[in-house]
Amino acid sequence: MTATTNEDAVGCLFEFLHSEIVRYVYSAADDVANDKCISHLEAMGCRVGQSLVEHLAKDGQRFKEDLDVMKFICRDFWTAFYKKQVNNLRTNHQGVFVLQDNKFKLLTKMSTGKQFIEHAPRYLAFSCGLVRGALDGLGVNSIVTAEVVNMPAVKFQIMIQKPNTS
Amino acid sequence: MTATTNEDAVGCLFEFLHSEIVRYVYSAADDVANDKCISHLEAMGCRVGQSLVEHLAKDGQRFKEDLDVMKFICRDFWTAFYKKQVNNLRTNHQGVFVLQDNKFKLLTKMSTGKQFIEHAPRYLAFSCGLVRGALDGLGVNSIVTAEVVNMPAVKFQIMIQKPNTS
Repeated sequence: MTATTNEDAVGCLFEFLHSEIVRYVYSAADDVANDKCISHLEAMGCRVGQSLVEHLAKDGQRFKEDLDVMKFICRDFWTAFYKKQVNNLRTNHQGVFVLQDNKFKLLTKMSTGKQFIEHAPRYLAFSCGLVRGALDGLGVNSIVTAEVVNMPAVKFQIMIQKPNTS
Repeated sequence: MTATTNEDAVGCLFEFLHSEIVRYVYSAADDVANDKCISHLEAMGCRVGQSLVEHLAKDGQRFKEDLDVMKFICRDFWTAFYKKQVNNLRTNHQGVFVLQDNKFKLLTKMSTGKQFIEHAPRYLAFSCGLVRGALDGLGVNSIVTAEVVNMPAVKFQIMIQKPNTS
């Protein structure tokens, strides 16, 4: 076994575990509980993101600006879990950041047809939580949502929540 | 971020996702459903093991003897997921193999006291399934059980099921 095969297998582990989690959360719920499932998945992702970011940025890495935190998420965080960088990062310079991934790993196994777009949210909720948790671990409070552009392209919108200092 | 930090984080991902899965499966069940939870976790592990072993042994690696399959599990499979090799492999040469891991990764975060041994099965079920699934993917039908020796040491017993040819 080569190191590459090993890393490849461990990389796939996330994909497979993630789909087992989605499958289980939905199978354990009744039909009308979609929102509840999304919220469970998001919360699980958030806890994992909080724990993991400590290991990714463990030399006590500190960021001066929100933009630096976002660059860390787009590059280091994304590469660790999705094996690629975010394709595009935009900001309105008022606390809203949009990260576009043109080939989001957790959707690449799904058909690219429009008919599956309605099922996409369940495959994005965990990752929204993962990003929110990672940002929280880096001291940034945020709301993270995701939207499918064209399968498997996804836009994650991050709205930074500043403490009310007024 | 160094490669080591990245690998470390991805290695931890399995631990964190695993504990989220255990937590969720138990929180979604009622108090009396312990057996059902164990069985869900085992089934999830099995599906993941089946999928992953294809990536670990993907050059169409074939094994002549059951003992060779077990050596692959003890070394390559264990290293990929638990970051260490199995400490001891024994067999009765009649289809029963015992794999002892003296410091099983998914138990190292738990207290080593005897009082937590009763909770150990829920942290072993997924891994029993993972091994059964991997063996199944390599063409070996088995029953896998686990027993805590002294936390965090675990013995996995694998009973190979031969097709009845009589």
